This record gives sequence, C-alpha cells and structure tokens, in this order.
Amino acid sequence: MFIQAIKWVGDTGGFLELIDQRQLPGKFVKLRCSEVEQLCQAIKTLAVRGAPAIGVAAAYGLVLALQKLDAAADLQHGLAALAEAQDCLAATRPTAVNLFWALTRVKKSAHDFVAAHPAAKLEKLHQHIFAQADAIYREDVQMCRRIGQNGEKFIKPGAGILTHCNAGALAAAGQGTALSVMFEAHKKGKKFKVYVDETRPLLQGARLTAWELQQAGIDVTVICDNMAGWLMKQGKINAVITGADRIATNGDAANKIGTYSLSILAREHGIPFYIAAPSSTFDLAIKKGADIPIEQRPAEEVSRFVGTQIAPDGAAVYNPAFDVTEAKDISAIITERGVIEKPNARKVARHLA
Amino acid sequence: MFIQAIKWVGDTGGFLELIDQRQLPGKFVKLRCSEVEQLCQAIKTLAVRGAPAIGVAAAYGLVLALQKLDAAADLQHGLAALAEAQDCLAATRPTAVNLFWALTRVKKSAHDFVAAHPAAKLEKLHQHIFAQADAIYREDVQMCRRIGQNGEKFIKPGAGILTHCNAGALAAAGQGTALSVMFEAHKKGKKFKVYVDETRPLLQGARLTAWELQQAGIDVTVICDNMAGWLMKQGKINAVITGADRIATNGDAANKIGTYSLSILAREHGIPFYIAAPSSTFDLAIKKGADIPIEQRPAEEVSRFVGTQIAPDGAAVYNPAFDVTEAKDISAIITERGVIEKPNARKVARHLA
Repeated sequence: MFIQAIKWVGDTGGFLELIDQRQLPGKFVKLRCSEVEQLCQAIKTLAVRGAPAIGVAAAYGLVLALQKLDAAADLQHGLAALAEAQDCLAATRPTAVNLFWALTRVKKSAHDFVAAHPAAKLEKLHQHIFAQADAIYREDVQMCRRIGQNGEKFIKPGAGILTHCNAGALAAAGQGTALSVMFEAHKKGKKFKVYVDETRPLLQGARLTAWELQQAGIDVTVICDNMAGWLMKQGKINAVITGADRIATNGDAANKIGTYSLSILAREHGIPFYIAAPSSTFDLAIKKGADIPIEQRPAEEVSRFVGTQIAPDGAAVYNPAFDVTEAKDISAIITERGVIEKPNARKVARHLA
Repeated sequence: MFIQAIKWVGDTGGFLELIDQRQLPGKFVKLRCSEVEQLCQAIKTLAVRGAPAIGVAAAYGLVLALQKLDAAADLQHGLAALAEAQDCLAATRPTAVNLFWALTRVKKSAHDFVAAHPAAKLEKLHQHIFAQADAIYREDVQMCRRIGQNGEKFIKPGAGILTHCNAGALAAAGQGTALSVMFEAHKKGKKFKVYVDETRPLLQGARLTAWELQQAGIDVTVICDNMAGWLMKQGKINAVITGADRIATNGDAANKIGTYSLSILAREHGIPFYIAAPSSTFDLAIKKGADIPIEQRPAEEVSRFVGTQIAPDGAAVYNPAFDVTEAKDISAIITERGVIEKPNARKVARHLA
C-alpha cells in the first residue's frame, strides 16, 4: 500500500487529514484541516503539494466550505460559499492546472445539482459535493496506478533513473505519477537505481522522494541538482522521469524549476526524457508552453534555509517555482490513458479525444 | 581594495590569518593558523578554499613548518619538516593543482637553497622560504588583476553574467579570477547584472560570491543551481564566467560540480562560456579532462544542511566536488598572460611557452 498523503476522515461532517510535508523526513506529522482557510494556507505553504494532490485537496476544500453554514442556509447560500472557497483555493498556486480542473468540475456539478433540484435542502448539495470529491479521490488512486502500469516498460532492468522534485504518493491521492512508474517496475521485480535531485529550494527530492523510494525498498541515491549533468556524462543515467504541473496542448510541459535544464542535458547525452502525469494535467486553453503562467515564490525560500541565512542581507533573489520543457525534448508523456510518444498537438488531441 | 582572504601577519615568526569562509555571510570571523596541522584542517574543511588561495596558503604552511623546529635543528631537519608538512598539505584537496604547484615550487627552492648553501643556518632557509611564499602571494595579487584586465572586454555594458561557486577575492590572495573580470569591468564604469548560482552543497555562490559582489557595489541576484538553464532560455544570460581548479593541456577544465552542466546549457543557448584562471592552473602532466582526479566529499554535505537533516537516514548520497568541462565548450580561457580563444592543445602549449 502506498503512503496516503491525503485522507478524508469521517462522513460529510468530517475533516481532511494531510501529511505535513514541510516536516518530512525529520518528522512525520499529520495536519487536520476542517476549514477552507486552513487548507488554503496548507496548499500555499506546501504542507500539501504536487499537482494531483492539490486537485483532490481542493475538491475536499469545497466540502469543508459547506460544513460551516448554519441550519438556516439554503442552496443559494451554498453556491455562494462554494464560490468564495473556490476563490481562496484558486489563489494558492497559479501553475498547477489540476487545482483549477478539480474546482471547475465540482463547481459545475454543484450548479447542475441545484438546477436539477432547486427545492433540495442544503444537506443534499453537501452530500452531492462530498460524493464528487470522493470520486475525484478514487479516480486519482486508479489514475496513478494506471500511469505506473503504462510507464513501467520504460524502466529497463539494471537502469539508472533520474527524477526531480516529488511526483510520488506524497504528490497525489494515489501512488503518484513519475514514482508510480518506478513502483510498478519494482513490483514486477525489476532491479534499478534511482538518482533523486534534491530539488532546491524546497528540497522535495531529498526530503520526500528519497523517503518514499526508501520506504518502497527501491535503491535510491540523493544528488544536488547541479550534479545531474555530470552523472549523465558518466553514463549512469538511462532515463529521466518527472511529473508535470500543467501541459499545453502541443505537449510543452511545466514542471518544477530545473526540469527544463534536465531535458536539455538528457537530449545532449542521448537519454530519453519522460513526463508522467494524469490527462487532467493538459490545459486545453493553452496552446504552448510560453503561455503557461509561472508562479514566482518568496525570496526567503532561496536566501534562508530552515532559518539559517545563506545569502547576504539584501541580495536579490530570483525564485520561479516552475519552468517549461519543450515537447520536442520529451520522449513520451505517460498518462492513465496510455503513452504519447514524441508528443505534438495532433497526438495530444488524439490522446485526449 | 579587495577583500583579503589570506594575510600573513608579522615576519618569519608570524602566523597566517584567514577569513573563516565557513561562517560567511552570517559571521565575519578571522582564523589564526600558526601550525601546519591547523592549516591542513582549515583547507580540508573549506575555511580557506579556491584554487589560487589554497596554493598561497600552502606556501605559507611550509613557512609555519620551519617555525616549530628548535634552536638545535639544522638544514636537514628543515628539509624533513618541509617534506612532512608538504605531505599533510598535499593530502587536503586532490583536485586543486595550484596546491601542488605551490608546494613543488617552494620545496624545489628549498632544495636549491640547501645545495647552494650547505653550511647555512636553518634560520636562513626559513627566511628564504618565507620570501618564496611572499613572492607567491604577491604574484597572485598581480595575476588576479591581470586576469581581470584581460577578461573585462567579454563583459558588455548591460549584460547578464552567470557565475558558479566562488572565484573571487575569497578564493585567492588577490581579487580573484572570474570575479576579477567583473571587478575590472565594474571599475571601468560598465553596468551589468550578475546571477550567482548558489552552488550546492556548500553554497559558496550564495554565501561568498553574492557577498563579494555586493561589497563591490555590483548588481547581484542569487539563484538556485537548477534555475540557470531557465534564465538562459529567457535570454537573461549573455555570458557565463567561472574559475577552474585544474586544466588539462588540451583545455578541458575541472571546476566546481555543476560547471559541466552550465557549459552544455550555455552552448545550447548560444551563450559564450569563459574560464578565468591563473596559468598555474594548467597541469602539464595531464593531457585531457578524463585524467583529472575528482575529489569525492562527505555525504553529510548533501544530506545535512547546517545541522538540519534534509535527506532520510541511510539514503545514499553522491557528492563529487568537481566536474570537467570540455575544451570544445569553452569559448575562451582567460589567464594573467592573455586569452586562449577556443582552446586546444596547440594553443594551450603556445600560451604557456
């Protein structure tokens, strides 16, 4: 069984339980969210993170929004509360498209419900939204497993695999995306070695991915981000597999800062580069990578580290959370639906049809 | 005046004063070395670092070796003490060639002195060695300035410059190598912007280079190592300038881990890539980069950060201190003698002749 990063506890009156990823691997602490604002804060500060996980968490956030209404509230109060919660949640992370996908899906479903049952009690809407969030959760678990099954063929026995950031169970409701590929290959008994970029500034690779792989019994070695090219040069990497936060319809993929450089280095060394992500990561409104908004994060993430100053006072810092890898440098995009080899607009459209 | 990372205080009975670079930029602490073992420890733990600085420090280390001998000691005791100190110093950092260059130069000079003055008192040898170390120091100051003067033409007004690790005054006796180029361009009144890779694992870029540039009034922005490619993609970098720790006679250059990746990324984006280093960085015994020994450093440098655990217990770590950039990816090597454009074995030989 995979690590459960997100868990709803109880029925419609319950709460969302998250593994506080800011504290891993030093401490394993669970965080309870029973209010939307708490959840928004948890997403913003990366207590919960990873594109699929944020989508699932946001869906449950809309369930929380309805719990706070008093007994006199009606469906219109419910829709207003959902709209307000959606605004709060949508403002947390601008790049992860799954967030918007989940919010839009649940909101649309709420409006459909109200249109079909205009005289229903608010409690019924609440149950309906809860069922929707639960469905998104369960679909994510399925989706993660399928991504792994679709991608494991790309891991050859004895291979050295490089991954960046965390696209594992901690980034999803299920067993993750890029790491799911590794988990499924491992399940088949393949032996391979995974090199994990530590992934500055927030070190999700060193802190989270290394921990997840270790828990699963997979051979893992942590490196600093700037060592990846040198490993490739020495022939130690046979494939790069990462997740994605948003993919344009031409196949350009936004993922954690540093992924772009890896794609160039992989091409230079003749190493295949794979993206593993749910099909909901495709943003149909975005034609190419240059149009994907890139979140800029606080300077302190770079200039301080666990409270220790590492750059001089007043030094400027540039801290984009993501970069965009071009479709031409992606060997294949692995989704729950299958594999898009050498992605382009035509193949993506066919895949999503 | 540049920051003085290394300073001999007093005459032949004096001591070596170092800025303790492990504590920058948080604390500005000076470290006194009056014994060889202290200095070896300081070099090993990177209190003093940077290829030219290590060379100068090691030369003074041989002066310290003679100070400890008692009044009855003769020239043979002196040579024995020098040999012992040389072994200790040579074992500190295997990649920096300037270290071996300085040790060999002083040792040879000591043997020449003893051959020429077999009846001299030990004190005379001590003075001779001190004069040698002082000469290496003064030559380094001159050399640094000339490197800057030879290279500043490569910084165009308005340019964005990327540098990696620290090749500044903190890495030399003088004003550094790669940073000297920037200091000289700044002196000429050119405006430009420097992006500094933080340079994991020991963050010499964020801690030292950003601080030095800030002190000099140069516009500096700190980035994480994995952001460099994305900056290049956005057209913000017009040149990459780094130092080197050892250069093969074909022009392949070993420098801080991460430099190799930058050279590939720079080529991909059509950005010139410069190495600034004293001509003593060339190792005439080494024909190509693959023959340069690469120092592996402790796993804890990666898995812990200022005492905080960032990778899970027991996770393997790969921590090479250096990598090798191929001559074909170097636009020019800038030394105190001039510039070697598109370096190769023939041009290097001519440059050093």
